[in-house]
Amino acid sequence: MIIVLQKDATENHLREIVNRIKDYNLEPHVIVGVARTVIGLVGDKNGLEPSFFEGLPGVEKAVPIMAPYKLASRDAKGEDTIIQIGKVAIGGDQLVYMAGPCAVESREQILETAYAVRAAGASILRGGAFKPRTSPYSFQGLGEEGLEYLAEAGEVAGMLTVSEVINPSDVELVSRYVDILQIGARNMQNFSLLRQVGHMRKPVLLKRGLSATIEEWLMAAEYIMSEGNYQVILCERGIRTFETATRNTLDVGAIALARRLSHLPVIADPSHATGRCELVGPAGCAAVAAGAQGLMVEVHPNPDVALSDGAQSLTPRQFAQMVEAVGRVAEAVAPQATDRWPERNVI
Amino acid sequence: MIIVLQKDATENHLREIVNRIKDYNLEPHVIVGVARTVIGLVGDKNGLEPSFFEGLPGVEKAVPIMAPYKLASRDAKGEDTIIQIGKVAIGGDQLVYMAGPCAVESREQILETAYAVRAAGASILRGGAFKPRTSPYSFQGLGEEGLEYLAEAGEVAGMLTVSEVINPSDVELVSRYVDILQIGARNMQNFSLLRQVGHMRKPVLLKRGLSATIEEWLMAAEYIMSEGNYQVILCERGIRTFETATRNTLDVGAIALARRLSHLPVIADPSHATGRCELVGPAGCAAVAAGAQGLMVEVHPNPDVALSDGAQSLTPRQFAQMVEAVGRVAEAVAPQATDRWPERNVI
Amino acid sequence: MIIVLQKDATENHLREIVNRIKDYNLEPHVIVGVARTVIGLVGDKNGLEPSFFEGLPGVEKAVPIMAPYKLASRDAKGEDTIIQIGKVAIGGDQLVYMAGPCAVESREQILETAYAVRAAGASILRGGAFKPRTSPYSFQGLGEEGLEYLAEAGEVAGMLTVSEVINPSDVELVSRYVDILQIGARNMQNFSLLRQVGHMRKPVLLKRGLSATIEEWLMAAEYIMSEGNYQVILCERGIRTFETATRNTLDVGAIALARRLSHLPVIADPSHATGRCELVGPAGCAAVAAGAQGLMVEVHPNPDVALSDGAQSLTPRQFAQMVEAVGRVAEAVAPQATDRWPERNVI
Amino acid sequence: MIIVLQKDATENHLREIVNRIKDYNLEPHVIVGVARTVIGLVGDKNGLEPSFFEGLPGVEKAVPIMAPYKLASRDAKGEDTIIQIGKVAIGGDQLVYMAGPCAVESREQILETAYAVRAAGASILRGGAFKPRTSPYSFQGLGEEGLEYLAEAGEVAGMLTVSEVINPSDVELVSRYVDILQIGARNMQNFSLLRQVGHMRKPVLLKRGLSATIEEWLMAAEYIMSEGNYQVILCERGIRTFETATRNTLDVGAIALARRLSHLPVIADPSHATGRCELVGPAGCAAVAAGAQGLMVEVHPNPDVALSDGAQSLTPRQFAQMVEAVGRVAEAVAPQATDRWPERNVI
Repeated sequence: MIIVLQKDATENHLREIVNRIKDYNLEPHVIVGVARTVIGLVGDKNGLEPSFFEGLPGVEKAVPIMAPYKLASRDAKGEDTIIQIGKVAIGGDQLVYMAGPCAVESREQILETAYAVRAAGASILRGGAFKPRTSPYSFQGLGEEGLEYLAEAGEVAGMLTVSEVINPSDVELVSRYVDILQIGARNMQNFSLLRQVGHMRKPVLLKRGLSATIEEWLMAAEYIMSEGNYQVILCERGIRTFETATRNTLDVGAIALARRLSHLPVIADPSHATGRCELVGPAGCAAVAAGAQGLMVEVHPNPDVALSDGAQSLTPRQFAQMVEAVGRVAEAVAPQATDRWPERNVI
Repeated sequence: MIIVLQKDATENHLREIVNRIKDYNLEPHVIVGVARTVIGLVGDKNGLEPSFFEGLPGVEKAVPIMAPYKLASRDAKGEDTIIQIGKVAIGGDQLVYMAGPCAVESREQILETAYAVRAAGASILRGGAFKPRTSPYSFQGLGEEGLEYLAEAGEVAGMLTVSEVINPSDVELVSRYVDILQIGARNMQNFSLLRQVGHMRKPVLLKRGLSATIEEWLMAAEYIMSEGNYQVILCERGIRTFETATRNTLDVGAIALARRLSHLPVIADPSHATGRCELVGPAGCAAVAAGAQGLMVEVHPNPDVALSDGAQSLTPRQFAQMVEAVGRVAEAVAPQATDRWPERNVI
Repeated sequence: MIIVLQKDATENHLREIVNRIKDYNLEPHVIVGVARTVIGLVGDKNGLEPSFFEGLPGVEKAVPIMAPYKLASRDAKGEDTIIQIGKVAIGGDQLVYMAGPCAVESREQILETAYAVRAAGASILRGGAFKPRTSPYSFQGLGEEGLEYLAEAGEVAGMLTVSEVINPSDVELVSRYVDILQIGARNMQNFSLLRQVGHMRKPVLLKRGLSATIEEWLMAAEYIMSEGNYQVILCERGIRTFETATRNTLDVGAIALARRLSHLPVIADPSHATGRCELVGPAGCAAVAAGAQGLMVEVHPNPDVALSDGAQSLTPRQFAQMVEAVGRVAEAVAPQATDRWPERNVI
Repeated sequence: MIIVLQKDATENHLREIVNRIKDYNLEPHVIVGVARTVIGLVGDKNGLEPSFFEGLPGVEKAVPIMAPYKLASRDAKGEDTIIQIGKVAIGGDQLVYMAGPCAVESREQILETAYAVRAAGASILRGGAFKPRTSPYSFQGLGEEGLEYLAEAGEVAGMLTVSEVINPSDVELVSRYVDILQIGARNMQNFSLLRQVGHMRKPVLLKRGLSATIEEWLMAAEYIMSEGNYQVILCERGIRTFETATRNTLDVGAIALARRLSHLPVIADPSHATGRCELVGPAGCAAVAAGAQGLMVEVHPNPDVALSDGAQSLTPRQFAQMVEAVGRVAEAVAPQATDRWPERNVI
C-alpha cells in the first residue's frame, strides 16, 4: 500500500502516520518528493484497508498495490481449477453447455427441453425454481415443485442440474435437488448467501453483478472460498452501462482478464448479456473466443409462450445451431488457449 | 402497452398477436403506419409484461406506457406519506437526521456518538451491527452485541434507532432492537429480504441500489408494500458511474423525481454518495435543496481510528456545522416545497 | 411516434395536440386507455422530433417508434456495403487488418512497422499524425511530416493508409496523403468535422464515441452520408463504463447489432478497447466472432519506447500470432455469417 | 509516480527500469515489498506519462500520484479566479445567471426572451446560433444571422451574451458577436477547438463532456489555459449514466470537488442535466447548494413551439420563480462558502 500525504501535511502528521503504520507491524518507507511525500508500506498487509489510513490527519489517499483477493488469485494457485462433477469437467479443455428455460414452468416443459438441449450438446440442465423478479406481480417460480421437476428431468435425460438460490435459508433445500448452486447477479454481494453456499460442498456458479467490478466479483468468490468451498465457477453475464439497445453489455475483456487473474473456471451467459435471441449466438461465440470455458443459455421449446424472458430464449433448433458455431470457435482459439496469449511486455 | 410489429410482419402474425391480446381480455387498437404497424392495448394490464409479447413471431418490441409500480405511485396516493415514530415524523415539514457510525464498534463509541449527534440535532441513531463488506477479511460488525449497544445508546440519549439487516432470517432479531429496518444498497433487489421486512410492521429504510434505476427502486418499495408494510422510506445514496474521484455519484435528479413519482418520504445519504468527508456537507445541502426530507450521515467521534469508512465520517463538530447549513437550505426551499415547482407545461 | 398524455390532460389539451399533429400533415389516432390516453401518429415523420410535442401542455412524453437514421439503415439498403479501395475490399468476405503505431514517430519507425505488419497480413497501415491527447503537455504528433512518412511507408510496403483528422480545416490536407480518413472517438459528434469528411470522396473510418449509443453512432454515420459520402466504416473501440481494470469495455453486442441495423462495414479496435497488450488478442478474436469484418490494431516495433500507448501496443511478432488466431475464428463463424443467425422469433 | 513491478520481474528488468527513470533525470526509490517491488520516482515529472513505463518488460503498472493539470489547479493558484466582464463578475460572491433559448430562432424571439430573463435577474443572455444536433435532419441554427440577433438583443436589454462555437474556423466570427465563447459537452475534447479559443482573449465557458471525468474536464481547461487564455468558466451539465428517467445525471459532487481542486469559477446547467422542465428548479437549487457560482438555464417565451429542447425550457415566469428560490439557497450556504467546509481530517 502507498500512502500519499496532503500538500500541507506537517512533520507531526507524518510522525503520527508512521507510528500508526508501525502499530500494524509494517515497515514505512518515506519518500519525500517534489510536490508530495509518499510512504510505502512493507510487510504482511493481510486485512489492512486503505480506510484505516484515509481518516488520519495529513493523509490525502491510500493506494493499495496488491489485489485484495487471495484464494481466488493466480498468486495462490497457478494452474487452472477443474471442477469435476460425475463425467463433466468444468474448466478443462472441453466446453461446457448449461441450457434450459429461464423458469421451470411445468414437468412437461422441462422434460421436453432437457431431451432437446441434451441432444444439442448440453450436459447441464438449467431451470429456475426461485426467480428473482423485478416486479412482485411477476411469476416467481414454482419453488420446490420446480426443483423436483428439474431433478427428474436431469435424471431421465442424463444431465447435471443447476438452479438459483436466493435465500440463505433455502440453500440446503436447493442443494438436495441440484448439482450446482447458482448465485444470481443481483445477489453477488448478498454476503449472507455467499457464506451459506460457502459452507456447502457443492459447486457454486457465481454470476457477476450488474455493476460489479472484476475485483468485486473475485472478492465475492473469495467469500465463498474463505468458508472452505473452493468449487466456484465465475459467470460473466453482461454489465449495466448507458447502452440500452441491448439488455446488458457483455464484457469480453472481463472474461479474458478473469482467466488471467484467477485460476477458477470462467463461463458466460450470452442470453442475459444481450436480451435478444438474435444476438445470443454472436455473443456466445465472442465469449468463447475471449476465453470462456462454457456457456449458460436460455432455451425454451416455445419461446412465444414462455412465462419469462421469451425475447431472449432460443428454440432447441437455434441452440443446436449455436453449439455448432461455438464449437468451431473453441477449436479456433484452442492452440492459443494452450500456449496462452503473450505475457505483457515479455518480448 | 404498445406493440410494434416487425417491418416484414405478415397478416398471419398480426392475427396471432391480436388473438393473444384478446386472450388477456384486452382490446387491441391496430394502427397501420407508413413504416410499421403498431398495436395499442386497452384494458387492465395488471401483471402484464412486455416479455409476454416479445417472444411472438412478428413482434419487434413491446413498449410499456405506464409505470409498473402501483402502491408506491402518486397515482395510488396523491398526498405525501408521513411516517410517525414516537415524536419523530419522517416525510413531513421537518428535516430528519439519522446519524452515527458506520459500524457499532463498542458500547462507549456508540454512547459517545449518540449524545454528540443528538446535541447537534439528530433524532435517529444509526449504527451497523451486521456489515456487508466487500472483503470477507474486513470487520463484519458485532452482530447482536452491536444491536444491544445501539438500542441502549438510543434509549439513554432519547433517540430512535436504525440498523441494517442483511439476512432474511435476522429480520425478527433486528426488529426487536431497532425502530427502523435498513435495507442496504447491495440488497435492494434481495427479494427474499424485501418480502421478509414487508411482513413486519416496522418502518423500512430502502437504499437505492448502486446501479438501480428509479423505476427499479420504486419496484423494490412495491415488493415491501405488496406484503402489507406501507412504511417505506426511500434513500438515495449515490449511484455507480464512470467517475471515480468520488465514491459514487449523488443523483439529485432522482431525489426530485422520486418525490414526484411517489408519495413515500425520500432522504439522502451524502456520506456514501461522496466517500470524502470534505464533500459530505455540500452534498447534503444539495440533496435537501433538491427535495430530500432528511439525511443519513456517518459520524464518528474519532474518524481516524474508525474500523470502517473513516475517510467519509464526520466528527460530531463537523456534523453540527453541517446541520446548521442544511437547516438554512431547507428553509430556503420551503416555500417552493409547499407550492411545488411548476408542473410540466402548465403555463 | 406515440404521444402519451398526462393523467390529468383535459379535452382542451387533447384538441390542441391533435391540431398540432395535423399541422405537420400527420394523421392522429387517439386511443383512450384505462389509465392514459395515447395518440399514434401516421404519415411521413421525416425530421419530426419528440421535442416538438413534449413542450405542449398535457403531454407526458413522446415515444419515437422508428430509428432516426435512414441512409445508414438496412431499411434503406438491404445488402452489405463493400468498400473497395484498390485491391482491398472492406465489408466483404475477407477480414481486413489495419495495423501500425499509435503515432508516427519517425520515418524509420513507420517504415519498419509497415514491412512487419504487411508480412503478418495487414493490408492497411495506420499511424497518427495529429493526435488528440488528453494532456496539452503530451506528444501531439508530427503533423504533416508524419503524414509524409506514413504515405511513403504505405507506398513502399504496398499498403493502403489510414490516419486521424481532428480539425475540419485539415481534412483536405490529410486527404492528400491517406486512403482512409479516420474520425476518432472523441470527435464522433464533432458535427463540423463529420460534414467536412462528408464532402470528400474518400472512405471514412468512424469510431464509436466513448459514451455514444449505437443509435448515436449510426446518426454520426448519417451525418457523413447525408453530405453524399456513402463510404463509411464503423469501428467499435470500447465504451466507457464503471469498470477500470480495462481501459474501456469492448461492446461485442454492439458489433453484432450494428451489422443487423446497418449495411455499413463494421470493424473493431481491440487495442483501445482493452488498453493492455495481453488482452488485445482475446478481444480481437471476440470481436470477429461477434461479426466484425476487420480489426484495427496498434503495433509498434519497440512498445517499450513508444511515445504513446506503449502498454497496449503489440510487437510485430505478437501481431502475427494474433492474425493467425483471428483468421481461424473468422473461418469458424463464416458459415454462420453467410446464413446469418436466425431472425428473432422466426421459428 | 509509483511503478509497480510484475511478480516475476527479474533483476535485469529492475535494472533497465531504473536506468530508464534516470534517463528522465528522476531519482528512483526502490522498495522491495513482500509480494511486489515498487519504485517511487522523485523529481520534476513535467510531461511524464505512465505509458512511458507501462510498455517496459517487468512493469505491471505505473500509478501517477499528482494530478496532471497544473495551471487549472489550486496548487498553482490558491485564491478563486474572478472573471470580470463589464459589470458582471463570474466566480465572486454574486450568483450569475445565463439564460435564454436553446437556439436563436428569430429576432423577435430572442428580443422577447432577453427582456424577460433580464427582468428576472439574468445578466447574461444565451442563445445558440451553431447547434450541434444528433440528427443531420434537425434544425441546425441560424448561423451568423442568429449571432446578429443575439448581439442586438444583448445590447438593447443591457446584457452580456454567450453562444456556442463548434468549428475552430468559426472562433473569430463568433468572438466578434459574443462576450463569452461556449464549448459544448460534445466538444470538450475537441482539442483543435480548445487551442483555438485558447488563442483568444475572451472568457470561455467549458462544459463538462458527457462521459468526462473531473480530471479530464480540468485537463480540457488546461488546454485552453496553456495557450494563454486563463479566463475559463467550468460548467457541469450532467453526465451520462445508466439512468434514463432524466436526460443526464447532474453530478453535484463534481461541482463541490471542482471548486476544491481548481480556482476557476464553476457553474451548472440544470436544463441539460435533467431534460425535464419540472426538475430544472430543484436541480438548480441543488447545484448552488453544492457550490455552483452561477446557473445556465434554458428559457423560452413559448416552450410549446420551441424548435429544440422544448421539454426542458422554462417560461420566463417559471425562471423568475426559480431565481428567487435559488437566491435564497445561495444565501443559506453563503456563510459556509466563506469559511469553507472543513478540510479533510483537520479536526
